Amino acid sequence: MPSLASAPPLWLRDNCPCPDCRDPRNGQKLFQITELPAGLAVGTVQDATTEDGAPAREVVWTPDGHRSVYPETWLGAHLPGAPAAPGDGRTEDDKHLWDAAGLADRIPEADWAAYSADPAARADALEGVMRLGFVLLRGVPVRDRQVLDVARTFGFVRETNYGELFEVRVEADPNNLAFTGARITPHTDNPYRDPVPTLQLLHCLTNAARGGDSGLVDGFHAAALLRAEDPEAYDVLTRVPVPFAFADAHTDLRAHRPLIGTDPAGRIREIRFNNRSIGTLRRPAAILDAFYAAYRRFGELLLRPELQLDFRLTPGDCLIFDNTRLLHARTAFAESGDRHLQGAYADIDGLASTLAVLRRDLQEGAV
Amino acid sequence: MPSLASAPPLWLRDNCPCPDCRDPRNGQKLFQITELPAGLAVGTVQDATTEDGAPAREVVWTPDGHRSVYPETWLGAHLPGAPAAPGDGRTEDDKHLWDAAGLADRIPEADWAAYSADPAARADALEGVMRLGFVLLRGVPVRDRQVLDVARTFGFVRETNYGELFEVRVEADPNNLAFTGARITPHTDNPYRDPVPTLQLLHCLTNAARGGDSGLVDGFHAAALLRAEDPEAYDVLTRVPVPFAFADAHTDLRAHRPLIGTDPAGRIREIRFNNRSIGTLRRPAAILDAFYAAYRRFGELLLRPELQLDFRLTPGDCLIFDNTRLLHARTAFAESGDRHLQGAYADIDGLASTLAVLRRDLQEGAV
Repeated sequence: MPSLASAPPLWLRDNCPCPDCRDPRNGQKLFQITELPAGLAVGTVQDATTEDGAPAREVVWTPDGHRSVYPETWLGAHLPGAPAAPGDGRTEDDKHLWDAAGLADRIPEADWAAYSADPAARADALEGVMRLGFVLLRGVPVRDRQVLDVARTFGFVRETNYGELFEVRVEADPNNLAFTGARITPHTDNPYRDPVPTLQLLHCLTNAARGGDSGLVDGFHAAALLRAEDPEAYDVLTRVPVPFAFADAHTDLRAHRPLIGTDPAGRIREIRFNNRSIGTLRRPAAILDAFYAAYRRFGELLLRPELQLDFRLTPGDCLIFDNTRLLHARTAFAESGDRHLQGAYADIDGLASTLAVLRRDLQEGAV
Repeated sequence: MPSLASAPPLWLRDNCPCPDCRDPRNGQKLFQITELPAGLAVGTVQDATTEDGAPAREVVWTPDGHRSVYPETWLGAHLPGAPAAPGDGRTEDDKHLWDAAGLADRIPEADWAAYSADPAARADALEGVMRLGFVLLRGVPVRDRQVLDVARTFGFVRETNYGELFEVRVEADPNNLAFTGARITPHTDNPYRDPVPTLQLLHCLTNAARGGDSGLVDGFHAAALLRAEDPEAYDVLTRVPVPFAFADAHTDLRAHRPLIGTDPAGRIREIRFNNRSIGTLRRPAAILDAFYAAYRRFGELLLRPELQLDFRLTPGDCLIFDNTRLLHARTAFAESGDRHLQGAYADIDGLASTLAVLRRDLQEGAV
C-alpha cells in the first residue's frame, strides 16, 4: 500500500470521513478548506478500527488535535500512488470508440418491455449510451408524446425553443431543414446552444416514405482519426471557437465553441459539427485559412462510409444518443411519403446518475 | 476597407448569402463544406448592387462559376482585418467585473410590473444578468410556484433531481445543507452536474428569521484577482479537473471539471466552487499539493469581505443569477424562524436569446 506519510496533509484532511467533517446522510463536507489551520500536519498515526470493525488508521492532527479514522480499504484505493481514478465517464478514455464494421453485429438495443420491467436490462441499455453513445429501444408504444415518457425513465427533458418535444416531419413553413424531406448529412444538434442538449431522443411513429433512413457516426472516433492522420488540423479544431448561430422570429441563439472540445488533459470530450449553423468566423486570414482547411478535412472524414452506421427506424423504435459525441444523419425522403418522428432533448448527467443508482442497487440486491 | 483579395476563398464562399447557399427563412446553410470544389478561387470581382439596391461586390467563382453578391457593409464588417468580432457574451471579455464597492449604488434591479409590461425594462434587466451576472426583481407576486413563471419570461426551466422547483427552508430530513439553517459560504450550485445549470432563480416568499441574509461574489472577478496575485495557483485551478460528487438514495451525480474553466483563448468562462461536494482527488502527491494550496488560496480570496455584495431578500424579491459566474452565500438563521424561498434552475443561452430578440424588436420599433 502507498504510504500514509506520502499524502499531502490538506488533501488527507479534506477527505476526513468523521461525522463532524462530512454529513453522513449525503457525504457533503461540513467545513471550508479555509477553516483548516495553517501548518496542518499529521501528528501521530496508529492502527485503529472503524465503527464497523474494519481495519483502519487513525491520524491525530497538529496543531488542532482533530482525529481522523481512515479505513485501510479507502487508503489503499485513494492514497497517491494508488491505481488511477476513473473519470466521470465523459471523455474518450471512458468510451468504446467504433466504426460501422465494429458495431454491425452488436448494435446496443433493448426491448421496451424488458427495459421497463427489468433493472438489469435498463442498466445495460443506459450503459450503451455511456460507452457507445447510443441505444435503440424497440417496441416502444407508438403513441403521441411517448418520447417524453422514455426520457423520464432516466432523467429530465430539456425544453428548448423547439418545444418540450419536436415533430420531425415535413412542415409547410419549416424553420429548420429537419422539418423538410431534405437529406441531412452527419451533424450534432443545437450547437448554437450553450449548454448544448447532451442527449437526443428520436421516437419513430411512422416511416412509410421512400428514403428517410438513419445514420450515426461516432464523432469521438472521427476526431481521434483526424488527430492520428493530421495532428495540425485536429489542433486547430480544438483551439478555434466557432460562432454557431440560429435565428428565427422568436429566437436568436449563439455559442462560440470549438468543433472538438477537449478537457484540460487534452482528451476529446465534446463534438459540435453542423454546417447549417456555422456563422461568420472573424479572425486573421491565416487562422481562417487554417481553420477552413481543417474543417473541410474533418467534414470529409465524417463522410467516410465506413464510419457511418446505417439503419432504418421503424414504428416503435426510439433512439437515445449522446449529442456531444455522435453525429446523426438521414437520407432524403419523398415529401409526399409518410414519415413522422417525435424528438426530445435531455441530459446525460441525469442518465449517468440513473445508471449509477441502478448498478448500486443491483449490487446491493435492492432491486 | 480590408481588401477582398485578402479573404481566404473557403471562408468567403462559406459566407455566400445567395438563396441557394443559405435558407432565407432562418439563415441555415444549404451546402456542405465538403461539396465545394477543390481549388476554389475568386475568378472575377465587380461592383454590383443587392436586391435592395445596396452597394455590393459580385464574385464569380472558379472553377464552378457560382456567383456571390456580398453587400459592402457586410464586407466592411467581416473581411479579415475588420474590427474584432463580439464573442458570445459568456467569457470575462464580455462581462463587467465587480466588487461590492463598485456595485453598492447600482445594484441591477427592476420592478416586476415594469419588467412585465415594458420590453425596454425587461431588456435592461436581462442585460444585468449578462453583464453583471444577476438582476434583482422587486415586487414579484408572493405566490407558490411563481418562480417558474419568472423563469418562463426569458427561457426554460431546467428540471433536476431537486425537482422542477426546490424549497429553500428548514426541512426535517434534509438531503442538502441548503435545506437547514446553517451558514453557507460562497459557492456555485450543482457542480456535480455537467451540463451545470447555468442560471439560478431564488424567489423570496417569507424572510422573518433572524439571520438568513444573502451575499453574492463575482467569481470571474475573483479568478482574475487570483491570476494577477498568484498566476501559478490560477493556472493549477484551470488545469486540474476536480471530481465533484453528490449522492443520495435516488441520485449519484459526478462531474470532473476544473474550478476555473477557460475557453481555448484562455479567457475565464466558468467557475465551479463548492466545498461541500468536492470528492476525492486522485493524482500524484505533487499535483495534490499544488492543487490544495491553490484551492485554499482561491477560497481565502473568495471570502474577502470587499468582494461580497451583502443584501437581504424580502418577500416579493426574485434574484436571477449566472451560476457559471457568481457565487452565492447566506448567513445562518434561527431554525425556528420563518424563512422560505423557492428556487429553480434555467439556462443562460435562452436568456441571451430572449435579450437579443428584445433588442432586435426594440431597434425595429416592433414592440
